[in-house]
Amino acid sequence: MAAKDKFHAVVRIALEKEQWKITDDPLRLEVGGTKFEIDLGAEQLIAAERGEEKIAVEIKTFLSDSPLTDYHAALGQFLNYRLALEVSDSDRILYLAVPISIYEAFFKREFAQTSVERYQIKQIIFDPIQAVIVQWIP
Amino acid sequence: MAAKDKFHAVVRIALEKEQWKITDDPLRLEVGGTKFEIDLGAEQLIAAERGEEKIAVEIKTFLSDSPLTDYHAALGQFLNYRLALEVSDSDRILYLAVPISIYEAFFKREFAQTSVERYQIKQIIFDPIQAVIVQWIP
Repeated sequence: MAAKDKFHAVVRIALEKEQWKITDDPLRLEVGGTKFEIDLGAEQLIAAERGEEKIAVEIKTFLSDSPLTDYHAALGQFLNYRLALEVSDSDRILYLAVPISIYEAFFKREFAQTSVERYQIKQIIFDPIQAVIVQWIP
Repeated sequence: MAAKDKFHAVVRIALEKEQWKITDDPLRLEVGGTKFEIDLGAEQLIAAERGEEKIAVEIKTFLSDSPLTDYHAALGQFLNYRLALEVSDSDRILYLAVPISIYEAFFKREFAQTSVERYQIKQIIFDPIQAVIVQWIP
């Protein structure tokens, strides 16, 4: 299985372990004549008075030789997806899912942290071996 | 010559035709431990009391099968470069240079316009055949 598909399957399992119900695989949107496919859509019942929480998750492998180039692409995709969700599904929160090895090696660098903060990139850090979510960064 | 290099040469010539002096090719920055290379840096003398205007230009060919995927990558790169410039060279204005054919075919679509406005992407639209700038979108 290609790494991209493997990570997709792993994040799906990791979300299910935390009682998320996968509702869309992929989550399809159409906004302003443009079609989007976000990797996963999921829902979870939270405190009854708050109803259901809905998320969308875009999974990135960062497998090229340049994590910075991969991050440029991930950032632009994330911001365009978030904009599309604002228009078509505004109570769904978008997360970028990133393997723990990349989080440690790239996202802890000073510039990456500045960029993630500036553009308010919510992250799910996952362990691809254990198929668990290590950290939610809201 | 690869299309990427050809477009680079064309934008350089087009800027020089408008009395820009190319000062950096590429423009190198280092911010928060991360190195960046933006395609071009240029300066132009404006009204004497205002001194010199400085720009940085990232040139995108949009030659893949998916202009949306190319745009995701261009957007993320542009926003990270703009953030790096804010820190290290804050009076330099960043532009995304795009060939006229892509501007007409992709950037006039509703979603692309929404995204360009939201993220305040300044654009230089160039004609690769005539080697001229068709439009500055500030």
